[in-house]
Amino acid sequence: MKELLAIQVDGRTSTEQWPLDRGLQFGDGLFETMMVRNGRIRFLALHQSRLAEGCRRLDIGLDAARLWRQAAQFAADEPECMLKLLVTRGGATARGYRPSGEESARCVLYRFAAPAAPAQDAKVVRLDLRLGENPWLAGIKHCNRLEMVLAARQLRRHDALEGLLADSSGRLVSGTLSNVFVRHGGKWMTPELDRCGIAGVMRAVVMREATAAGHSVTTAELPYTVLDQCEALCLTNVRFGLLGVTHIDGRPLVQDDWATRLSSRIGELDE
Amino acid sequence: MKELLAIQVDGRTSTEQWPLDRGLQFGDGLFETMMVRNGRIRFLALHQSRLAEGCRRLDIGLDAARLWRQAAQFAADEPECMLKLLVTRGGATARGYRPSGEESARCVLYRFAAPAAPAQDAKVVRLDLRLGENPWLAGIKHCNRLEMVLAARQLRRHDALEGLLADSSGRLVSGTLSNVFVRHGGKWMTPELDRCGIAGVMRAVVMREATAAGHSVTTAELPYTVLDQCEALCLTNVRFGLLGVTHIDGRPLVQDDWATRLSSRIGELDE
Repeated sequence: MKELLAIQVDGRTSTEQWPLDRGLQFGDGLFETMMVRNGRIRFLALHQSRLAEGCRRLDIGLDAARLWRQAAQFAADEPECMLKLLVTRGGATARGYRPSGEESARCVLYRFAAPAAPAQDAKVVRLDLRLGENPWLAGIKHCNRLEMVLAARQLRRHDALEGLLADSSGRLVSGTLSNVFVRHGGKWMTPELDRCGIAGVMRAVVMREATAAGHSVTTAELPYTVLDQCEALCLTNVRFGLLGVTHIDGRPLVQDDWATRLSSRIGELDE
Repeated sequence: MKELLAIQVDGRTSTEQWPLDRGLQFGDGLFETMMVRNGRIRFLALHQSRLAEGCRRLDIGLDAARLWRQAAQFAADEPECMLKLLVTRGGATARGYRPSGEESARCVLYRFAAPAAPAQDAKVVRLDLRLGENPWLAGIKHCNRLEMVLAARQLRRHDALEGLLADSSGRLVSGTLSNVFVRHGGKWMTPELDRCGIAGVMRAVVMREATAAGHSVTTAELPYTVLDQCEALCLTNVRFGLLGVTHIDGRPLVQDDWATRLSSRIGELDE
């Protein structure tokens, strides 16, 4: 345990900024994790629109134009890296959960080296944890991520790249850090994310590119048990791209030719 | 929007502490809000045990003895106030949701003036928002509080002290900042909190004192519609104590004599 920080609030107000931030106190914020290639943020418009949607839902005011200008500059300084952008509602101007509406958003940009691509053997497992359902928060990349922290801890016990999760009603949702596409009965599908989960940027890219190539990938309510019967599975996030899963809970899966081609095509997009 | 902070992580590691804290990034932490009376934290043992349970569930290591010693000292310096204690898992030692196990918990104590007691007219309303269900997180006072932030925003539209919430399966859970006790068919009950909600310290005190006085208050799965039929309602938190509700959605409620006596008795406890 580190040293304890003791702060007097109101009256003799503290000069400490972060301890009073609502992001720290309540997870009252949003983030984006982005790939930088050739000094540019990949799929920038999709990150921008998801962040804007998150701000709209949480009612966080942001000077988005200035923010994205600074992010682009930060990316340009390090041509191959990853960026994380964190936006919080800002310092609490009153006590308690209720925002006063007078807060001023606080933003942090983190730059770090792009991690190595996942190993060839993309094994996944099913995890026990069930995600709570809340349509008000579904889809956006907000900072209330304890469920994923606990899920990631569960995953540590397995020799697997990713763990798949259902919601509290037993529907398939996503992995701990990726979205999932399922081939079942010859059809590719991905879970609807209207009750929980994060609507990933790479998920959107895959659906867009599949449609552009004349293939239909549908969003659907998928029972978790679809994983017993599926022929093929892919994971998506901005780091993995579209990644074919080799095994689920030890059961080998086929590598789908169409998905492999789509993955290459997405990798080559200059966007 | 405030100035943006740009940070290089790994390699040329940042000296910024808070932006790398997992509490800020994921709401990966816990808190307690406590009343101080005569320089002592009220119901200290109950706060200690809830925090310990939260640490156990999230696997956050803490030097609890030292922490509570410091909290007691901070309380003693200001005999009538409120304290908030925030504990996070600490700075991220690796990227992503998964804790490395090498984190060192970070603690902040906030001291502020005790707010005025609620007005005589304790009106409550039902809110639309439904709480997600997750038994792994239910009961503990963790920092993933966006649902309550949104609920508190909904409440702003009403002339009411508190808003009551159901879970995604339609069961009554709690208010935005209080637990709830319901009298129905002459029996006092409070919702089970095994799928969501925070198990409040004052809720525990009420159940303990009721039992000590020979009255039974049971925990139960209560449909949200119990609020249509209940005769009396009380809210609890360490600030309100046990507070009789005067109206729900405009419908007047009776003030229960037994609850009024129990409330006085709890107010007089030297604990």
